[in-house]
Amino acid sequence: MRENLLLEEAQEVLLNQARPLGKTLVPLMEAFGRVVGQDIRACDNVPPFNKSPLDGYALRSHDTRKASPLNPVRLTVREEVRAGCMPGQEVVPGTAIKVMTGAPLPAGADAVIKYEDVKEGENCLEVYQPLKAGGNIIQAGDDITQGELVAPQGSLVSPALAGLLASLGLSRIPVFSQIRAAIVSTGDELMTPFEPLVPGKIYNSSLYSLEARCRELGALPVILGNVPDRVEAVAACLQQGLATADIVISTGGVSVGDYDVVQDALSELGAEIIFWKIKMKPGSPLIAALKDNKIIIGLSGNPAAAMVTFDLVAVPVLKKMMGQNQLLPGKTKAVFLDRFDKPSPERRFLRARLHRRNGMDFVRLTGEQGNGVLKSLVACNVLIDVPAGSGPLKTGQQVNAYITGNINESYQQDFRSSLMRIAY
Amino acid sequence: MRENLLLEEAQEVLLNQARPLGKTLVPLMEAFGRVVGQDIRACDNVPPFNKSPLDGYALRSHDTRKASPLNPVRLTVREEVRAGCMPGQEVVPGTAIKVMTGAPLPAGADAVIKYEDVKEGENCLEVYQPLKAGGNIIQAGDDITQGELVAPQGSLVSPALAGLLASLGLSRIPVFSQIRAAIVSTGDELMTPFEPLVPGKIYNSSLYSLEARCRELGALPVILGNVPDRVEAVAACLQQGLATADIVISTGGVSVGDYDVVQDALSELGAEIIFWKIKMKPGSPLIAALKDNKIIIGLSGNPAAAMVTFDLVAVPVLKKMMGQNQLLPGKTKAVFLDRFDKPSPERRFLRARLHRRNGMDFVRLTGEQGNGVLKSLVACNVLIDVPAGSGPLKTGQQVNAYITGNINESYQQDFRSSLMRIAY
Repeated sequence: MRENLLLEEAQEVLLNQARPLGKTLVPLMEAFGRVVGQDIRACDNVPPFNKSPLDGYALRSHDTRKASPLNPVRLTVREEVRAGCMPGQEVVPGTAIKVMTGAPLPAGADAVIKYEDVKEGENCLEVYQPLKAGGNIIQAGDDITQGELVAPQGSLVSPALAGLLASLGLSRIPVFSQIRAAIVSTGDELMTPFEPLVPGKIYNSSLYSLEARCRELGALPVILGNVPDRVEAVAACLQQGLATADIVISTGGVSVGDYDVVQDALSELGAEIIFWKIKMKPGSPLIAALKDNKIIIGLSGNPAAAMVTFDLVAVPVLKKMMGQNQLLPGKTKAVFLDRFDKPSPERRFLRARLHRRNGMDFVRLTGEQGNGVLKSLVACNVLIDVPAGSGPLKTGQQVNAYITGNINESYQQDFRSSLMRIAY
Repeated sequence: MRENLLLEEAQEVLLNQARPLGKTLVPLMEAFGRVVGQDIRACDNVPPFNKSPLDGYALRSHDTRKASPLNPVRLTVREEVRAGCMPGQEVVPGTAIKVMTGAPLPAGADAVIKYEDVKEGENCLEVYQPLKAGGNIIQAGDDITQGELVAPQGSLVSPALAGLLASLGLSRIPVFSQIRAAIVSTGDELMTPFEPLVPGKIYNSSLYSLEARCRELGALPVILGNVPDRVEAVAACLQQGLATADIVISTGGVSVGDYDVVQDALSELGAEIIFWKIKMKPGSPLIAALKDNKIIIGLSGNPAAAMVTFDLVAVPVLKKMMGQNQLLPGKTKAVFLDRFDKPSPERRFLRARLHRRNGMDFVRLTGEQGNGVLKSLVACNVLIDVPAGSGPLKTGQQVNAYITGNINESYQQDFRSSLMRIAY
C-alpha cells in the first residue's frame, strides 16, 4: 500500500484502474445526457437533396442573363411545389416552378429568385435582374456530408447533438452503459434529516450531496445509507455496494482514530488497498482500494472535505467509467481578491468563486474553510490550489484554480444591461 | 402588434409578461435541480454543539498553562466519548475526557489536544505544552448560525446546497413548481427519425433538440409532435398546448410565404400577437403571442435559427417562470480567431466556441452559419454578437459574445498536464 500520494499521482493510479463499462443502444431521446459509445458517421447527406431556402421561383439562371428593369424576362410558371412534396415537372427553358421554403429544387433549375424580386402574373412571372447559377440554393449535404464524423466516441449528447442525430434519421443511438455508484456514509453520530435530532448527533449531509452530484454527472446513485462505526457492519455494506454497483464511495472512518474502521473493513473483505492519504487539505485521509475489479474510494467524513476530494479524485474516475474523454477539471490562473492569513505547510485547496471583470478571472473565497464547513461549498465553483510551503495569500496575487462548479454563472454576473431594470 | 424589435426589446417585453408559477414542498432529494421557492433560514446551529475536530483529549486549558517537555502535566482520564454519544461526566480540574472526531465537547473542557501530542497511560495522560482556550474546538454554529440565510429564493438546489439543507434537518424543501413547456413543430416536409425517409422530405430535428434543451433547463417538455402546414391543424395543436402546458413553443410557419401559418392560427385562436420579427439573423421571423395569460413563442423552422432564438429569447422567459434570478445569458468580450468575410447589414449572431489560452478568452466559429446548419451548434457555446452595419470580421478583432452553452469545457481544454498521457 502506498501512502501520502500527490493528488496527481492518486488521480493517475485510479484512472489507470478505471475502465468504461459496456455499450448499449438507446432510443434517441434517452440518449440525451449520455455519452456516445462509438464514432457516429452520417449515413446520408443533410439535407438529402438540393432545396430552396425561401419562398420564390426556381428557374434556369441562363434564362435571366439579359434581364433588366427595362427588359424583364418573362417565364411561364409550370407548377407549385411545397416543402415536403416532389416536383412533378422539370424547369425547361423559358419556365419556372414556384417553390416554398424547404421545397426540393426541381430538375433543370439552378437558381431560386425571391417572391419580392419578381412581378407575378397569371401562371407567369417577370424577372428584372440576372441570377447567378447556384443562387439561393441549399445544396444537398450543406449541413452534413454523407460519411462525415458527426459525434466522436466519448461526446456527451447535448440538445444540439440530439437534434443533429435526429436529422440523420437515427432513432437508436450507441451510448456507454450508465454506471451505478454505491454511496455509503459511516458514523454513529449521523442521523437522517427525516428524524428528530438526538443530543450529540448531527444530520447526515454527505449522503445527499454525493447522491445529487452523482446524478448531476449522469451516474446512477445506489444509496446504501448510513452504517455505524463497526468493522463488520461497514464491511457488509461495502460488500453490498460491490454486489450492486460498479464503484463504491464511502465517507468517514478513514483517519487514524480508534473508531476509524473503513481500512479494517477493506482488509476484512480482502480488498487490495491501493493507497491511503493524499498530500492535501482538506480530505487528506482518503483511501482507495480494489476488489472484484471494482474501485472503492473512502472519503473523509467531514462534509466539505468529502466533496472536495470527491470532485478532485472520484469524479475523473466516474467520467472515465462513463466513457467520457475529458476527465480532469479545467484550470485557470486568476487574481486572488481576498486575504488568507494562514500559511500552508501542506498543499491546500480553498473553496472560492470565479468572478469575471473586464474579461479577466478573479477569485474570492466563499467563506470559512474548515473541513466540515459545507456552507462555503454552495457558492464555490473553483478550488484554489495553494502549493505546499506557501505563506499567507495576499490580495492581488496570482493563483491557480481548478474549475469544479458551473462557471457560466460567473460570466452571467459580469453582465450589465438595461434589462437589469426588469420588474419582478 | 409591434414589428422588427431589437433583441433586447423582445426579451424585455416577454420577461415583463412572464411570471413564476406557484410553489410547492418536495422531499429533499427531489429538490435537487429545482429552484428554491422562498428564502430558507437556518432553524438551528450547525453543528448544534461544540465538538472535537479530531481524536484527542478534551481538557481545561488552564490546567496546561505550565506544561513543558521537562514538566509535563498529568491528567486523569474520566471517560471516553465517541461521535454520536453524549459525555456522561464533565471535565473538572486535573482531568480530561477522551474524545473521538465529531464527539461533543464535554462540559468544563475548553480545548482538545491531539493523541499524537500526548503520552497516554492507564486512565491518564501527560501533556507537554500549554494549550490555548478554544484550541481544536469546532464551535456550535461554526458552519451555519441559527437564523442565517442559507438559500435565497431563486437559488438552484445544487449538490452542495442539498447537503447543506440536509445538515439542517430539512426533509421537505419549498421550491417553485416545475413548468410545462409544450413543443410543437410545423411543416409538411418533416418526418420522425423512426420512419424511412420519403423523397422531398427531411427528418425533424427541432422537436428533439428543444425537448432536450427544456429538460436540461429543468422544464418538463410536453411534446405535441409535428403538425402539417394547415391553419386549423396548427391552431388546434397550439390550443392543446395552452390546455396542457404553461408556455407553448412552436417551430416553423412564421415567415411570409403562402404556407406560413402560425400567425393565422394565432389569430384564429384569438391570441394577442405581441410582436413579430426581431432585428437579427438567424431567426428574425419570431412571433410572440399571449392567450389565457400564457406565452406562445413561434420560432423559425430552420433548425439552427430555432435553437439560437430559443436560447436568446425563450430561455430567459422559461427561467423567469421557473423562479430563477439570473435570466439572461452571460456575456464576454473575446478575441476573434477566425475570419468571417460577409458584411452584416443586419445584426447577426455567429455560432462559435470559447477557447481559453493563458487566461484570455478567444472565440472561433464552429462551422457554416446557414440558418439550417445544425452541425455548427454542436460545439457552439457562445454566440458572437455582430452589430448591424458591421463589415467582415477580421482575425484578432475584439467581439462581444453571449454564453449560451457550457464553457467549463473550454476551460478544460486549456488544461495541460502529465495526466494527458494516461492510457485508455
